[in-house]
Amino acid sequence: MGDGERYVIGVDFGTLSGRAVLVRAGDGAEIGAATFEYPHGVIDRELNGRELAPDWALQVPSDYVGVLRHAIPELITATGVGAGSIIGIGTDFTACTVLPVTADGTPLCELPEFAGRPHAQVKLWKHHAAQPHADRINELARQRKEPWLNRYGGLISSEWEFAKGLQLLEEDPEIYHRMDRFTEAADWIVEQLTGTHVRNACTAGYKGIYQDGRYPGRDFLKALNPGFEDFADDKLKGPIANLGDRAGTLTSQAAEWTGLNPGIAVATGNVDAHVTAPAAQATGPGQMLAIMGTSTCHVMSAPERVHVPGMCGVVDGGIVAGLYGYEAGQSGVGDIFAWFADRFAPGQSHEELTARAAAQKPGAHGLVALDWQSGNRSVLVDHALSGTIVGMTLATTADDVYRALIEATAFGTRKIVETFNASGAAVTEFVAAGGLLKNEFLMQVYADVLRMPVATVASEQAPALGSAIHAAVAAGAYPDVGAAAAAMGGRGAVTYRPDPAAAGVYDRLYAEYERLHDYFGRDGNDVMHRLNTLRKEVLS
Amino acid sequence: MGDGERYVIGVDFGTLSGRAVLVRAGDGAEIGAATFEYPHGVIDRELNGRELAPDWALQVPSDYVGVLRHAIPELITATGVGAGSIIGIGTDFTACTVLPVTADGTPLCELPEFAGRPHAQVKLWKHHAAQPHADRINELARQRKEPWLNRYGGLISSEWEFAKGLQLLEEDPEIYHRMDRFTEAADWIVEQLTGTHVRNACTAGYKGIYQDGRYPGRDFLKALNPGFEDFADDKLKGPIANLGDRAGTLTSQAAEWTGLNPGIAVATGNVDAHVTAPAAQATGPGQMLAIMGTSTCHVMSAPERVHVPGMCGVVDGGIVAGLYGYEAGQSGVGDIFAWFADRFAPGQSHEELTARAAAQKPGAHGLVALDWQSGNRSVLVDHALSGTIVGMTLATTADDVYRALIEATAFGTRKIVETFNASGAAVTEFVAAGGLLKNEFLMQVYADVLRMPVATVASEQAPALGSAIHAAVAAGAYPDVGAAAAAMGGRGAVTYRPDPAAAGVYDRLYAEYERLHDYFGRDGNDVMHRLNTLRKEVLS
Repeated sequence: MGDGERYVIGVDFGTLSGRAVLVRAGDGAEIGAATFEYPHGVIDRELNGRELAPDWALQVPSDYVGVLRHAIPELITATGVGAGSIIGIGTDFTACTVLPVTADGTPLCELPEFAGRPHAQVKLWKHHAAQPHADRINELARQRKEPWLNRYGGLISSEWEFAKGLQLLEEDPEIYHRMDRFTEAADWIVEQLTGTHVRNACTAGYKGIYQDGRYPGRDFLKALNPGFEDFADDKLKGPIANLGDRAGTLTSQAAEWTGLNPGIAVATGNVDAHVTAPAAQATGPGQMLAIMGTSTCHVMSAPERVHVPGMCGVVDGGIVAGLYGYEAGQSGVGDIFAWFADRFAPGQSHEELTARAAAQKPGAHGLVALDWQSGNRSVLVDHALSGTIVGMTLATTADDVYRALIEATAFGTRKIVETFNASGAAVTEFVAAGGLLKNEFLMQVYADVLRMPVATVASEQAPALGSAIHAAVAAGAYPDVGAAAAAMGGRGAVTYRPDPAAAGVYDRLYAEYERLHDYFGRDGNDVMHRLNTLRKEVLS
Repeated sequence: MGDGERYVIGVDFGTLSGRAVLVRAGDGAEIGAATFEYPHGVIDRELNGRELAPDWALQVPSDYVGVLRHAIPELITATGVGAGSIIGIGTDFTACTVLPVTADGTPLCELPEFAGRPHAQVKLWKHHAAQPHADRINELARQRKEPWLNRYGGLISSEWEFAKGLQLLEEDPEIYHRMDRFTEAADWIVEQLTGTHVRNACTAGYKGIYQDGRYPGRDFLKALNPGFEDFADDKLKGPIANLGDRAGTLTSQAAEWTGLNPGIAVATGNVDAHVTAPAAQATGPGQMLAIMGTSTCHVMSAPERVHVPGMCGVVDGGIVAGLYGYEAGQSGVGDIFAWFADRFAPGQSHEELTARAAAQKPGAHGLVALDWQSGNRSVLVDHALSGTIVGMTLATTADDVYRALIEATAFGTRKIVETFNASGAAVTEFVAAGGLLKNEFLMQVYADVLRMPVATVASEQAPALGSAIHAAVAAGAYPDVGAAAAAMGGRGAVTYRPDPAAAGVYDRLYAEYERLHDYFGRDGNDVMHRLNTLRKEVLS
């Protein structure tokens, strides 16, 4: 940059709030941050006095605009940075979070005639009521050997655009037909800033099944439901922009909301996990970034598209333009620790459990666990799998099991890394981000288990920083995201390095994990599915 | 009987106390009971200021005599039954509990020169410090294909006479050579009552490897240690009496201690589990009695000796004279529930956990567990096995696991019953005794899982009643134990009957249990041994 006194804003739209960060474009220094909690939060019990089914999860679009109207002005005031020095804004969003809108982008739920109507609302990523629709999509795609199915580990999620779209058509056709578009919130928020509808390559690919320049074909959609034939052409329409592209410039309306100057650059939308890669300087080929929280999302770019079994998706330009973006995942990580502590170690904090677990020698608990309490995403792609603990004796303590569960999630990560390595998309570097970073013992276990250094992201608000990096690229401050990441992203001071003695013990435990993984998850013993079936049977 | 006003006394010598019961010989009515707590309890930390190794467990013989001197006079006084109406006394003991004595039965630990010397003391059944010696006995017996090894499921326990004897020889030869005999406490207490040393067929067979009229041969013992060659001939000497035989009559010394009349009949010694069979009217062929407590002991008689894999022992006359007595066991039952509640459900009582577990439908928790937290005695005979729980999700609660553990112990019992059935010693009736009887839900689970009615013993002090039954036989009130059991033993009012719907679900869960049982316990995956080895390795 050189001039050093220009700034960008990144806004991370999370599940319960939005966080805006003001960043110096020259070096990524975070000057200030402001958060706005969504007044309506997550609506998953009742809407306007009507009870919602258990798998529903809705939001209110004006809450998102609230972030623009409150967090950004607050940020500008607090930092004292003049609007004239702010050259761009970038955003990232949860995904797949979608809403039906009119041609001008007005959410249908804001039309008086549809107020309080469930299917007119924003469906949050964790709205899981479209599972039967996802099942049909998967079944039909398997039957027809649709080429795109393999790009998603053989499984389209109930969270994604096509499942939610099919549910909308079949459960509330009036809303379906009334909407002009079914838009990702990631793109809708950019439309609020620019007045222009542009789809981003990340959600279009990972959530919209956009592969090789096209969506699933009309004949496939028609076979699902004759009324669904036009879904992609009609409801997902819109140009697709690369990440880092300028989607447009700030409208005077948005300038009024935010206090920013009209006409500044607005970056194409993005997704919270993927946008973190540049903040962690993990945009190059083979640099795997793990965002470790209640679940873990692994994103990595590679120059070629190869088949890696059990991915969540591979998307051209899905993380950075010009490379193939791979995404994998562990469906349960931090939530497994939370479940165990809540249910089986009441009154003990994670800090206490961790401290006592950390005091043990590796292998001393005599346990090996499978981390499938929330199913297995990568690499088995089987949500009906469940957890196991082997090796318990009358001497086994809650600390022992807690440690074994931490190790099990590390083994799950190693399985993913090894699957990438074996598939021709080698993992050369491992970088961690997310809430579990604060557990130093856990991070060390991961380094020991992976036998790789585990680097960390420096920023404590990495997604918002990643959005700011995209803003800087959109504003022309850098030629591309990689260059911006090099200048503005950063690694934490601590890199966890494998301890050879511990790694040797973990190699032996991982061998046990792998054997149990294949026994219960592949062809050995389908007991978990049978238990799951029996459970549903007796409860129905 | 006819006269109806004659009485017998049964005394049950437990781990922490002895309990004397006064019983009407005609119908088994329990007139009164008195307990004497051993003043020295279990000595497992230090002896006379010297620390004991972790696996040691000692007792003090005068504590046993205290039961005779205090509980029996108290019982006579409290009941008001005149000593002249009491025609016999019988006893049962923990086993294998052994002590070194002089020719006149004086415990070596009571000789001033050996006071406070560890190896001069009584070694309680749960003294496990002779494991290396047991290992050598088993290894050598396997090498030499000793025919008796098969009678004990292929494994001699560290608790038994030969292991404890070999430890004594090698660790304190002076005591070994000084003792005239190494005697079971079950026989020693009879010697205190009668002045006569008589070995009982039960401990001689189950704990003393007495098979087909002989002990292991001199050449075998010599190969273990040249100094051990004479062990059986010299240290285990003494006539062997059938259960129910009169061992002798009460000495004037013992009459003085107890307040009973000298000259009354004293029954041959017995073991707490086996003596319970007549109290439960379970002495006939195929009547399996399960004594269910921290662990479960299964005893059953059959007319022929067949090979049942994984028994603890088969002994001619081991339960009643004239039949082969079979013993099998589950090494962990109630202690598994206690472990789980203590470690993973703190603050919740067994009653609360049971009530909530019982409110579930069978199969609703989606779990199946292996009950090997304390290893597996029958039918795998492998103490290095460990526990497993399969099927956990983020919805799994402590109640769910508690129920799954109860079910797992029932599956373990079914495995034992089915193994007997498949081996030609069919189980035709199942009767339960022991502390777990009070858990009605658990009893119902056992009935459902076994698909057999589960009858219960009526008496709450069944071992002492069993000893009283043996006393009545020894006194000539009945021709044999079976006849005495018919008149004096009894079944509880409640018999748990299988619920067909629940049994159908449990059949499916048991099929899963069996598959995991064979996978982890037989040839599938030796992971539990490897985890156990790794654990010891890193802790050493």
